[in-house]
Amino acid sequence: MEIGFIGLGQMGKAIAANLIRAGHRLCVWNRSAAPAEELAALGASIASEPAAAARGEVLMTMLADDEAHRAVLVGGAILERASRGLIHVNLATVSIAFARELAALEAQRGISYVAAPVFGRPEVAQAARLNVVVAGDPQAVARVEPLLAAIGERTWQLGSAPERATVVKLAGNFMIATALEAMGEAAALVRAHGVGAGELLEVLTQTLFAAPVYRIYGRLIAEQRYQPAAFRMALGFKDLRLALEAAGSAHVPLPFASVLRDHFLEAIAAGRTDYDWAALAEIPARHAGLPTPL
Amino acid sequence: MEIGFIGLGQMGKAIAANLIRAGHRLCVWNRSAAPAEELAALGASIASEPAAAARGEVLMTMLADDEAHRAVLVGGAILERASRGLIHVNLATVSIAFARELAALEAQRGISYVAAPVFGRPEVAQAARLNVVVAGDPQAVARVEPLLAAIGERTWQLGSAPERATVVKLAGNFMIATALEAMGEAAALVRAHGVGAGELLEVLTQTLFAAPVYRIYGRLIAEQRYQPAAFRMALGFKDLRLALEAAGSAHVPLPFASVLRDHFLEAIAAGRTDYDWAALAEIPARHAGLPTPL
Amino acid sequence: MEIGFIGLGQMGKAIAANLIRAGHRLCVWNRSAAPAEELAALGASIASEPAAAARGEVLMTMLADDEAHRAVLVGGAILERASRGLIHVNLATVSIAFARELAALEAQRGISYVAAPVFGRPEVAQAARLNVVVAGDPQAVARVEPLLAAIGERTWQLGSAPERATVVKLAGNFMIATALEAMGEAAALVRAHGVGAGELLEVLTQTLFAAPVYRIYGRLIAEQRYQPAAFRMALGFKDLRLALEAAGSAHVPLPFASVLRDHFLEAIAAGRTDYDWAALAEIPARHAGLPTPL
Amino acid sequence: MEIGFIGLGQMGKAIAANLIRAGHRLCVWNRSAAPAEELAALGASIASEPAAAARGEVLMTMLADDEAHRAVLVGGAILERASRGLIHVNLATVSIAFARELAALEAQRGISYVAAPVFGRPEVAQAARLNVVVAGDPQAVARVEPLLAAIGERTWQLGSAPERATVVKLAGNFMIATALEAMGEAAALVRAHGVGAGELLEVLTQTLFAAPVYRIYGRLIAEQRYQPAAFRMALGFKDLRLALEAAGSAHVPLPFASVLRDHFLEAIAAGRTDYDWAALAEIPARHAGLPTPL
Repeated sequence: MEIGFIGLGQMGKAIAANLIRAGHRLCVWNRSAAPAEELAALGASIASEPAAAARGEVLMTMLADDEAHRAVLVGGAILERASRGLIHVNLATVSIAFARELAALEAQRGISYVAAPVFGRPEVAQAARLNVVVAGDPQAVARVEPLLAAIGERTWQLGSAPERATVVKLAGNFMIATALEAMGEAAALVRAHGVGAGELLEVLTQTLFAAPVYRIYGRLIAEQRYQPAAFRMALGFKDLRLALEAAGSAHVPLPFASVLRDHFLEAIAAGRTDYDWAALAEIPARHAGLPTPL
Repeated sequence: MEIGFIGLGQMGKAIAANLIRAGHRLCVWNRSAAPAEELAALGASIASEPAAAARGEVLMTMLADDEAHRAVLVGGAILERASRGLIHVNLATVSIAFARELAALEAQRGISYVAAPVFGRPEVAQAARLNVVVAGDPQAVARVEPLLAAIGERTWQLGSAPERATVVKLAGNFMIATALEAMGEAAALVRAHGVGAGELLEVLTQTLFAAPVYRIYGRLIAEQRYQPAAFRMALGFKDLRLALEAAGSAHVPLPFASVLRDHFLEAIAAGRTDYDWAALAEIPARHAGLPTPL
Repeated sequence: MEIGFIGLGQMGKAIAANLIRAGHRLCVWNRSAAPAEELAALGASIASEPAAAARGEVLMTMLADDEAHRAVLVGGAILERASRGLIHVNLATVSIAFARELAALEAQRGISYVAAPVFGRPEVAQAARLNVVVAGDPQAVARVEPLLAAIGERTWQLGSAPERATVVKLAGNFMIATALEAMGEAAALVRAHGVGAGELLEVLTQTLFAAPVYRIYGRLIAEQRYQPAAFRMALGFKDLRLALEAAGSAHVPLPFASVLRDHFLEAIAAGRTDYDWAALAEIPARHAGLPTPL
Repeated sequence: MEIGFIGLGQMGKAIAANLIRAGHRLCVWNRSAAPAEELAALGASIASEPAAAARGEVLMTMLADDEAHRAVLVGGAILERASRGLIHVNLATVSIAFARELAALEAQRGISYVAAPVFGRPEVAQAARLNVVVAGDPQAVARVEPLLAAIGERTWQLGSAPERATVVKLAGNFMIATALEAMGEAAALVRAHGVGAGELLEVLTQTLFAAPVYRIYGRLIAEQRYQPAAFRMALGFKDLRLALEAAGSAHVPLPFASVLRDHFLEAIAAGRTDYDWAALAEIPARHAGLPTPL
């Protein structure tokens, strides 16, 4: 299939590469040139401007946030110049309000908006083992399903309203953040009583909490190893704020998210914007006066 | 082995039955007679008073809380009348302060205190698939290991100070409670945007959160089914308070535990003491004005 | 002085009337006609459009929020058509970001932006006993000081950067909200032990807490009387969000504000948008299962 | 009147001195000798043991906590040896559970328990300007009223059940702690935007928050001056825990108290047990990365 792909960060580049490997023709665009050239080496063509990536059947975007999407899609005049019948697959995590706004704007121009945010860190993206939650017009979703199959382990259908996939993604990321804080508090509790965080997490992550989230992050926390970041504190904070915003607009109090917001702010005030967001787990250690790299 | 066993609630009865099945001779005591008679039907002898259960090589206890242990062990004069060299295996979750106090009291009388709290709900206990965290004098631990193997899937060694196992158990139960709240908040968030709690949890518990805690409790939460209780709200609250107490004594702030405490109180104020503690997940729904059985 | 006045809600109308009584010539504009006509009866002239109110020496605004200011000042073309040298005195509570943006925009057109948010409920405004916190260009502030003296009990000078007054106002309103919650929690505590909220608050508001905030709101809380609203829940929530936003942009965690946010959301989810924000104090009663009008 | 007085800390000594000045005969006892000798210099007699102070018409106690009261009153055999008809006026802040227990124990021996906890720091006690909240048997209360009048500015009658005064005192102290945190958060917010804590608090404590609590503590916070302590962090924490305990036993969630508990723990983990509890206000500064003596 002819696919435009915009946004070649760690995640986007890995996904785009898998699409090429699956035999699709990609036309890529990125703000900085280097990642686009890496993909050109794999066979992609490079778009001269964002709008040039919107001429195929499908446009995929994997940009940092609402603002970046707005700048490229609206500011970059893509919407005006896209081919009619284009399917826009947004792989990124955006706000519910923006998902709705964009879906409506695109519908006016005959573009079909499919929300397809992904769960998984860069190494999972490289291994084409992402979990993709997808929602949008059923025909469009059916059309792009082979693409999602090529980048992920499994696709989860969530219906026709795009924001349904978006809210599930936000809820999932929120739950990951709660797991970080919970491990951080539990680790502080046992450490203060002479038991290592690793001793605790070894037991739990092989038993009741034997799930990827706890295993992957549990190791980082047990080793207090937060650099290099696979998912930066700043991005984690963005997603948490999107969850709080989505909850606020529907009048849903989320006290755990409120605690997390305060801890993100403290980590950022301490200059840890570029640490892996797993470093959130150090805030409880900090408050308890335990040794911490934060 | 000759084993005394005191405390035949849902958990204790299932564990004791498994010890009998493994070929051990049990002498059981319980406050109410019925469960003791059930075990007698499997071959146990019934102790006429608590102290009569402390004449074998090992005494196992599975009582509700510190007070129940104190009433039976101290009030029931077991400590005075136990056979010297007795190993006391405490399978229950008690406070760190009480674990220390009891270990010291028993040491004075030549009794070896082994903390061996277990992770698992009644059906897991019946299937002899508990996870046991154990700490105490290494010789005593080695001696009782076959017993622990008979009741559990795996035993986790945590060293010679009994309270090390206790704090790991408290930290683990605290983490389960955080998972309940996290699922409850995430469910409220998606429900307020028209997505079912079951839709969300189906995705997450098969992917990032594919762990027993999330699967077992996720189903209860998706179905809002909190009766009959496998683990009562009141017991969950007891364990949370023990975690807060252990944290407080070591000056460890636990903000998630603080939120949980407030939510437990609200659930209890609403008369839900006998619901499964998974019903904690309904508090966020309640605050958001969503339909809830709480 | 020739003063334009835009925004004649409960507060604005009372303030404008006091300016007329002090001998100033007012040209007023309001979205709905009735309040403007009330002031015309006192001697004000009515502007045919917002820009017509910007032809005097001073323009005062008292609009609901950032959006209303943006709609009228930017959308209403006031900035383009204002007389050069105009002093814009903003009496309302806006965001710090908007205060900065507006000050810069106006500076480009030779308008001097003075932030002068006020503390006090409508009856205080009527009595010309507001407390005004003011910041802006010193010459402009000096020029408008007689006006501020005419509407308030005292003016507090906070320097030349307008956002300094804004942040003090936001911090003050946040502190009022904490007082509401604190009284609500304390009332729930004593009520659950058989002591009336009024008994508690009578003691405290005549002793340690003998301050206007506690006296005024303490009475409403003791009587659980939240209608009619002097300051609506929705407006209180707006101000709290501005405080959280100002704090977030500077990486300041505010855990009390986080609790308040959750309680505002719950009150709004319960349909209490139009109650006086003192009704926040009912959330703790609600959680404790005590009788409450919320 | 013949008064026994036990507990001569900063508060007790000041109160006892005022009773002597009012013409009463005091027989004092204290764990350490020096303060008793200071009072002897004013005319008091010194009891050789606690029970010797219980031979008059009234026994007043001002001890640190439940444990100290238990040690002296029960351990010191006062209850057994007190004169029948004795009125025990407890000026200290104890737990509700202990107030009830003690009242019942004393009633069995013909002693009348009057709860009369006081609001005010040492300098207020010296000036005989305390606020006393009193509850107990009306005849006993009437009998001791002249004594309370001699040590305080005003006595607040709260009925015949002693714990009614106790819970009002706990609620009051909790509210003071919320004011400390609120000022701390507000100060962090404005400081992060370049406004001094003193600038903010000067405005607020002369206007909306013109109450003793805000004025006294506001000055300490503006100057970040927390030593010497008039009321130690450790004592403040004790009172907060009593409030949480009283709330918990009646199933009242207190989220502000939960935040305060976490902040007390952090301050104590940081080694600030002996700072004035006003230093709680530094925790928000700490989390925001602002300069702080904590």
